[in-house]
Amino acid sequence: MNIVEIITKKKLGQELSREEIGYFVRAAATHDRTMAEDYQLTALLMAIRLQGMTARETTDLTLAMRDSGDVADLSSIPGVKVDKHSTGGVGDTTTLILAPLVAACGVPVAKMSGRGLGHTGGTLDKLESIPGLSVEESEEQFLRQVREVGVAVIGQTGSLAPADKTLYALRDVTSTVDSLPLIASSIMSKKLAAGSDAIVLDVKTGSGAIMQTLEGSIELAKAMVDIGTLAGKPVVAIVTGMEQPLGTHVGNALEVKDAIDVLSGRTKGALLEVSLLLGSHMLMLAGRCATPEEGRAMLESALRTGSGLSRLKAMIECQGGDPRVCDDVSLLPQPAVRREVRAGCTGYVQAMDTMALGLAAQAMGAGRIRKSDALDYSVGFILPVRIGDRLEEDTSFVTLCARSEEEADRAEAAIRAAITIGPEQVAAPPLCYAIVTKDGMQRLG
Amino acid sequence: MNIVEIITKKKLGQELSREEIGYFVRAAATHDRTMAEDYQLTALLMAIRLQGMTARETTDLTLAMRDSGDVADLSSIPGVKVDKHSTGGVGDTTTLILAPLVAACGVPVAKMSGRGLGHTGGTLDKLESIPGLSVEESEEQFLRQVREVGVAVIGQTGSLAPADKTLYALRDVTSTVDSLPLIASSIMSKKLAAGSDAIVLDVKTGSGAIMQTLEGSIELAKAMVDIGTLAGKPVVAIVTGMEQPLGTHVGNALEVKDAIDVLSGRTKGALLEVSLLLGSHMLMLAGRCATPEEGRAMLESALRTGSGLSRLKAMIECQGGDPRVCDDVSLLPQPAVRREVRAGCTGYVQAMDTMALGLAAQAMGAGRIRKSDALDYSVGFILPVRIGDRLEEDTSFVTLCARSEEEADRAEAAIRAAITIGPEQVAAPPLCYAIVTKDGMQRLG
Repeated sequence: MNIVEIITKKKLGQELSREEIGYFVRAAATHDRTMAEDYQLTALLMAIRLQGMTARETTDLTLAMRDSGDVADLSSIPGVKVDKHSTGGVGDTTTLILAPLVAACGVPVAKMSGRGLGHTGGTLDKLESIPGLSVEESEEQFLRQVREVGVAVIGQTGSLAPADKTLYALRDVTSTVDSLPLIASSIMSKKLAAGSDAIVLDVKTGSGAIMQTLEGSIELAKAMVDIGTLAGKPVVAIVTGMEQPLGTHVGNALEVKDAIDVLSGRTKGALLEVSLLLGSHMLMLAGRCATPEEGRAMLESALRTGSGLSRLKAMIECQGGDPRVCDDVSLLPQPAVRREVRAGCTGYVQAMDTMALGLAAQAMGAGRIRKSDALDYSVGFILPVRIGDRLEEDTSFVTLCARSEEEADRAEAAIRAAITIGPEQVAAPPLCYAIVTKDGMQRLG
Repeated sequence: MNIVEIITKKKLGQELSREEIGYFVRAAATHDRTMAEDYQLTALLMAIRLQGMTARETTDLTLAMRDSGDVADLSSIPGVKVDKHSTGGVGDTTTLILAPLVAACGVPVAKMSGRGLGHTGGTLDKLESIPGLSVEESEEQFLRQVREVGVAVIGQTGSLAPADKTLYALRDVTSTVDSLPLIASSIMSKKLAAGSDAIVLDVKTGSGAIMQTLEGSIELAKAMVDIGTLAGKPVVAIVTGMEQPLGTHVGNALEVKDAIDVLSGRTKGALLEVSLLLGSHMLMLAGRCATPEEGRAMLESALRTGSGLSRLKAMIECQGGDPRVCDDVSLLPQPAVRREVRAGCTGYVQAMDTMALGLAAQAMGAGRIRKSDALDYSVGFILPVRIGDRLEEDTSFVTLCARSEEEADRAEAAIRAAITIGPEQVAAPPLCYAIVTKDGMQRLG
C-alpha cells in the first residue's frame, strides 16, 4: 500500500478500504514522511472534499482517528456520562449554562472543550476570562473534580485524536474544511476519544454556521448520529438556528456574564431556550427522565432554586477561579472603551451576516487571527436586537466594548454592515429545526 | 490575493483569473513559502484535476509557466526553426530519425529533449548511450552547432519553465499527472520557451500513452494546438497509435541502433512511417513544401542518398560522440546476457499492454525508478512481433538484452504477461488516427 495509490483511488471516486484509511490516518498521526508528505495528505483531502466518502468510509476514518491517540477512561466516575458538542456559533455559550444545570440534576458532566476558531468563540477562552481560572488539569484532577463537584470543563488531557489535529491544521489552509465526511469524522473522533457514554450534538445552521444551509446541516447531523450508532454510543443531534448570534453577548468575559445572568434568572431568551433543549436531551440520554419536557422541568427547577449557579460557582472555585464573579459580574475583565450605540434609523431587522459579526468580535481582540495571538477577554459587543425586531431612531442597537475608540469605530461599521434593516417585518427564525436520533429525524420549527 | 482564496475558487468549480493563475505560477517558480506552501499547491492541483480548466485558463497557465524562466532566443539561426515533441511512448525514437532527415532537407532543428520518465524512454538517455556523446552544451555551442551542422539535440540550456518543474514534481507524487489542462500547459510552456518558430506534436494514444483513449488524446491535441494558436505559433498535432511499441527495439542503445538501421535503409516499418509523417509536417511548417506528400518525398530522398545518416553522424561527432557507431552498431554498449526467445505457442497477437512493456524495460535497468538511478544503456529487448501477426511455436518472439539471467527471466515473464495471444486474428491498428491544426481536425486510419 502507498499513499499515491490511495490518492488515485479517491481521485477516481472509488471507495477506500479500512486498511487504506488506516494508512492515511497513521501517516497523519505519526508525521512519518516515508508514509506520506503533507503535500500528499492535502491532495487526498481535496480529493475527499470533491469526491466525497460513503458512510462506511466516514465511520472508518472516525474510528481510525479516535484510535490514533489516547481514549479517555471516565469509568471511575459513577453514572452515565453525557457529553455535548456544538459545531460552533457566535454568542453560543450554552455549555456554561447547561453543564452546571445538568450536573445539578445529578448527571456528571466531564467535558473537554476547545478554543475559539475563526469567527466562532471557544469555551476554554471564555472560561479563562474568569480571574485565576485554569482549564489545564491532570486526568486525575479532572476525574476527582467531576466526582466531587459533578462538573468540569477543561482542555484536552493527553493526546486525543492526534491525526485529526494534523489533518485539521492542513484543511484550514487548503480550503478543505467544508467537507461533510471530514467535519463529521473530525468532531466524532474527538468526542468518542473523550470517553463519555452518550453525546448530544448541537448542529448549527445559518449565516454563522459551518453548514449554512438547512439541508447541509441535517446531512451533517445524520452523518454524526450514524457514526455514533456504528461506534456503539447513543448520539442525538439537534439542528439549531445560527441566523443570528444565540445570546445577546459576544466576546469572552461578556459571554461568561451572559451565562451568569441566565443562571441567575435575570436573562431569558434564545440562549436559555437552546440550553434547556440540549440539556433536556442530555438528561434523557442519561436515563434521568423519559421525555424532553420532563427534562426541561428538572432543569428549570435547578435554575429556579439557584442550584445551577451554585454548581458553576463550585466548578470555578475548583479550577482556581474567583467564584465571586457569579455574584458580581463586574469582577470580570472590563473594557477600556464602552460605547452605547442607538439605531439611528427606523425599520425592521431583516437578516444578519452572523459570520461577519463573529469576525468583527475577532477583529476587536476577542478571537485569534493567528494561533499565537493573545486575546483581550474584555472586548466584544452586546447586541440586544434580533431578527424581526422593530427599530426606532433611539432604540439601543449595540454596546461596544473595545480596546480603543478607533477599534470601536471599526467594529461599529462592521456590525452595521452585517445587519440588514428594511421596511418590511420578517418572522423571527425558529430556534430549533430538527432532532436526529438513530431512529430517524423529527422536523421542528 | 492569497492562495487559499484561489484554491477555494477552483474547488467550487469557478474560473481563475489571469492574475490568480499568475500568483500560483509565481509561487511555484520561486518556492516562496509566504506565497504558498507545497501542500497548498497540491490541493490546488487536485482541484484542477477534478474541476478542470477552461481553454482561457489553460492558455494563461501555459504562458505564465513559459514566462517563469528563460525563453530561448534562436534568432541567430537562419530560417524557420521547427520543434517536435512526443507525449511519450515505448520504442518511440522518431527524434533520432526525423531530426537528421529534416536537417538534411535544409530545415534547422534546434531541439531540447528530456530524460526517460516512468515507462517511456527519453531521447537524452538514448543519445548518451553513444560512447563519448554529451547532451550538455552552452547556449552558444548549441546555436553554433545548429548553424554549422543543421541539427542539435541537447538538454535544456538555462532554466526553461521552472514553475512547470516544481509543479510536475508535485503532480508526479500526488496522482495529478492525468489532467488535460495540466498536461497541455506543461508541454506547451516548455515548447514555447524552447524558442522555435513552429511545433509538430506527436500525441500518442493507446495502452502505452499518457492518454489511453482516442477521445482523450484528440482533446489533448486540440488543447495544445489552441494554446499554440493563442500564443501566436503554428502548431500541428498528430495523434498516433501507442497500442504497441512503435519501433521493434526498446532500451537506450537498442533504440539508437534501431534509428541507425532505419537511416541506413536496413529497417522499414512503423517507426519509419511515423517519422516520415511527423517530419513531412515539420517541412510543411517550415515552408519547404506545400503538401505532406511532397515533404515525404523529400525525406525519402534524404534517406535514400544517405544524407540523413550523414547528418546524424555529424551531430554525434559535434557532441563529442563516436560517429563510427553509424557504420558499426556493434560499437554501441552490449549486454551481459542476450537471450533469444521463441513464441512456444501458436495463435495471433491480439493486444499488448504497452505500459507494462515499458515498465519491463525500466525494471531491466533501461529506465529510472528513482531519479538518482543509474541506467544500463545496453539493456532492453527487441520485439519483432506486432498486433495481428501470426505466431508459430518457433517464431522468434523476443530477444532479451539483460544484466543477468535472473533479470532476463523476470523480463521474459513480464513481456509474456503483457502480450495477449489468441486464436482469432485481429487487424493491425492504424499508425495515425488524426491530424489537428488550427483549422480543425482530420480523422485518418
